[in-house]
Amino acid sequence: MRPATRPRESSADVHTDRPAVLFDLDGTLLDSVYQHVIAWKEALESAGIPLSIWRIHRRIGMSGGLFLRALVRETGRELGAAEADHLRELHEQGYRRRIAEVRPLPGAQALLELLTRAGVPWAIATSSSDATAKTSLSLLEIPAGVPIVTRDHVQYAKPNPDLFLAAAEALGRPISESFVVGDSVWDLLAAQRANALGIGVLSGGYGREELETAGAYRVYDDPQDLLEHIDELGIRTHV
Amino acid sequence: MRPATRPRESSADVHTDRPAVLFDLDGTLLDSVYQHVIAWKEALESAGIPLSIWRIHRRIGMSGGLFLRALVRETGRELGAAEADHLRELHEQGYRRRIAEVRPLPGAQALLELLTRAGVPWAIATSSSDATAKTSLSLLEIPAGVPIVTRDHVQYAKPNPDLFLAAAEALGRPISESFVVGDSVWDLLAAQRANALGIGVLSGGYGREELETAGAYRVYDDPQDLLEHIDELGIRTHV
Repeated sequence: MRPATRPRESSADVHTDRPAVLFDLDGTLLDSVYQHVIAWKEALESAGIPLSIWRIHRRIGMSGGLFLRALVRETGRELGAAEADHLRELHEQGYRRRIAEVRPLPGAQALLELLTRAGVPWAIATSSSDATAKTSLSLLEIPAGVPIVTRDHVQYAKPNPDLFLAAAEALGRPISESFVVGDSVWDLLAAQRANALGIGVLSGGYGREELETAGAYRVYDDPQDLLEHIDELGIRTHV
Repeated sequence: MRPATRPRESSADVHTDRPAVLFDLDGTLLDSVYQHVIAWKEALESAGIPLSIWRIHRRIGMSGGLFLRALVRETGRELGAAEADHLRELHEQGYRRRIAEVRPLPGAQALLELLTRAGVPWAIATSSSDATAKTSLSLLEIPAGVPIVTRDHVQYAKPNPDLFLAAAEALGRPISESFVVGDSVWDLLAAQRANALGIGVLSGGYGREELETAGAYRVYDDPQDLLEHIDELGIRTHV
């Protein structure tokens, strides 16, 4: 762990075998990235904005505002605030129409249950809105009291650190003793800015080297692979 | 260029400014990878075979037989020959149902036209079947006489080198003086085995480092980016 820069809890309160784990949602716990990609493609096409699908994929997980700003740069098309809001709404509708195709990633539910049983505090921090996150989270069993932080709770979504900072605060844990688990470079950049340790998963479709370059300390295939190597995070689960 | 191991044409016949260019199709000239991915996901789900979408994505462009063999390994599910054929058929049907969503990648048509005008011989080599390739190629204007090599013409599709070897042969050009342009590691591995120079494009959704590791000599964003840097391949277009 990196040294904390704030006053520490008393050492008796700190379980170094139980650091907090802050999860991204789409592509990290749910196999939902490609449905988000197609929903954005559809929304942009309906507005007459052409953008290659891989370019959309590479921006999933970042703040919707930044996504649309990058788009303006890449297509040279200006977007007014009302049009941007409309596109975001179309994307959310398109994603929710596809929710029946979305599945939890292998090992996602088991990993969350293991952490809960082991007394490891965990939370979810997603660039989605409250409404879309709620739809997605219906696919997982989340115990009462687990903090769910969405873009509706912070000023800036990823790659700004606000979502993960808010999640650690909701758990009452220092961010510098927290792991951030995410599938996208936006999660890992946000983790670096938040001074958390970033863990990458390949299940959102990024390449391993992209995640490492963005600051991933370790990269696993998916939640199942992370679950099978949870000891590598210094998390002891023989409780 | 690597040294040719076969008898060379007479030097008067060789235009070193006009090496042959052998293109992959899906993800390289067409923005069709994600539709292939979703069509495979749908086919596998209908057979009760769960597989994460990113794992499917990473196998697009390889031979359908190898794809299904890898799947057997990853899911532990045995597949009979009839079931494998049925899944391939379902995938092709699912893809063709989505063809209305597929677009040429930016710069694809312009790049092909530039090569034609410059007298650079080019061909297309795809792991798709004749029928699916025909559907896809309806989105591009391909001059008569351009060789289109599909898996129906060779014993083994990518990452075996057969498709690219057949394409170079159809052009009457030495493979060792040909560029292979592809979006997937399967194209680049096949290029290495064929002794061609591999050029990667990011437009199929792989990361840059994955393509470089698989042997890409240069990596461009998409056909438009390749078109704007065509001089880097030693192709002179002031004809």
